[in-house]
Amino acid sequence: MTDYFTEEASAEVVNARMGAEVDPRLRQVMHALVSHLHAFIKDVEPTTKEWESAIDFLTRTGQMCSDTRQEFILLSDVLGVSMLVDAINHRRPDGATENTVFGPFHVEGAPERAMGDNISLDGRGETCLFQGRVLDLDGRPVRGAIVDVWSDNAEGFYDVQQPDTQPKWNNRGVFRTGEDGRYWFRGIKPVSYPIPDDGPVGQMLERVERHPWRPAHMHFLVTAEGFEPITTHTFVAGDSYLESDAVFGVKESLIVPFLENEAGDTSWKSEFDFVLKPH
Amino acid sequence: MTDYFTEEASAEVVNARMGAEVDPRLRQVMHALVSHLHAFIKDVEPTTKEWESAIDFLTRTGQMCSDTRQEFILLSDVLGVSMLVDAINHRRPDGATENTVFGPFHVEGAPERAMGDNISLDGRGETCLFQGRVLDLDGRPVRGAIVDVWSDNAEGFYDVQQPDTQPKWNNRGVFRTGEDGRYWFRGIKPVSYPIPDDGPVGQMLERVERHPWRPAHMHFLVTAEGFEPITTHTFVAGDSYLESDAVFGVKESLIVPFLENEAGDTSWKSEFDFVLKPH
Repeated sequence: MTDYFTEEASAEVVNARMGAEVDPRLRQVMHALVSHLHAFIKDVEPTTKEWESAIDFLTRTGQMCSDTRQEFILLSDVLGVSMLVDAINHRRPDGATENTVFGPFHVEGAPERAMGDNISLDGRGETCLFQGRVLDLDGRPVRGAIVDVWSDNAEGFYDVQQPDTQPKWNNRGVFRTGEDGRYWFRGIKPVSYPIPDDGPVGQMLERVERHPWRPAHMHFLVTAEGFEPITTHTFVAGDSYLESDAVFGVKESLIVPFLENEAGDTSWKSEFDFVLKPH
Repeated sequence: MTDYFTEEASAEVVNARMGAEVDPRLRQVMHALVSHLHAFIKDVEPTTKEWESAIDFLTRTGQMCSDTRQEFILLSDVLGVSMLVDAINHRRPDGATENTVFGPFHVEGAPERAMGDNISLDGRGETCLFQGRVLDLDGRPVRGAIVDVWSDNAEGFYDVQQPDTQPKWNNRGVFRTGEDGRYWFRGIKPVSYPIPDDGPVGQMLERVERHPWRPAHMHFLVTAEGFEPITTHTFVAGDSYLESDAVFGVKESLIVPFLENEAGDTSWKSEFDFVLKPH
């Protein structure tokens, strides 16, 4: 019996077409994609015009992409998909530091620096001391952990966004812990910034009455032999966008007080311990 | 209480962000989109690499689009989405002619021709007489119905795909029924052809072991005052791709015998009555 297309059995008819030798994982993903996609369509019953709008939106999103712009990742971000995929892939036991999205601004190969060095090379912004420890789940210091950090500058831009006006490796650095697992370095208190909103994703945000801002945060990639890497941010407590991060990156455990540094040589200080889960 | 992102409540957290004044229909569509999209992701639990592949696929699909190529519509077609949207928007009572996808090759403004005219202007292919009636649900002829027809040529290409080698309006024409509701014109027996498969959609089809072919068909757009327009095809019975149309356009009621035309001046004849539903 041939199964021609019917509205009722639409997903089953499409899925029945897959060949016998299709890679099992691909088969599983495609089967689920078609099932959920058809369920969505049956749920909302789009008009032909709405379907055309969707095609147009996806097309413009693809055409906005370039070497320096990834509009589909932005779309994934603002729909919470990037965070969901991140969460699924980084489930951790209680007590381990939570992950958040990697973001597009990490650069491989930042210079390794000595503890205490200042990563702010443009001399702008409010100075801040970042410090803390890298620990295992039992609270023991992790020696030789690599703490790779990056943030925006005082204007809300990463160095790679302003290669002509910011020094190379501005607000970036790599630190290696000693026996005590401690890290400390100087930088600036990060500032909030909007994700690029001059494309289709920005138009969508506007239509659903959402803003494009991310709360101020410092990026950390913490790795150590024998442990699962942590990709995360620390968020500046009190930032007005903490409760409405455009990309849903905030987790409560990652909000960190930035305190006036009365005794030190920076205006602010911020302390955070990273707790690594073994492989 | 602020709802920061969690894996469990991911869709609810995203949907809670929509503003209070969002257009109700947009709210409904976005709510369903986020819910189904997150359900899909939770179902398959993509790895970070798989998520990157999806971003890359969507990006390449968008970048393949041009003035003469709509890769996202192809994607919609091969996933059965175009047919599903068509079905939802063209539910008809028993006895009325079923719809199928419009396709990208209709051209507005084809010349109106006299009944019996030959729409094949390049003199290639197996000649065929198309005939039948336009009727209402009670079987009464519809006078003044517009029968707009188009097909590929003997090589499987529409005139607009080969503007340099095919005469303009080759295998296209518009006919207007008289009192008896009858139409008849000469053309060619259409041939099967592949949808464009040199892009991301073609690569996807290959990986799920599907071919890009559509069974041979004649396009019809039948309109008449007081009736719902019908966009449909007639499919050539016996075509080897009827059961595996790459875009799922085939419905059993649209498969039509093409018979040898022993008494006539064409090699083949094909008869089909269109039954219109009132507005």
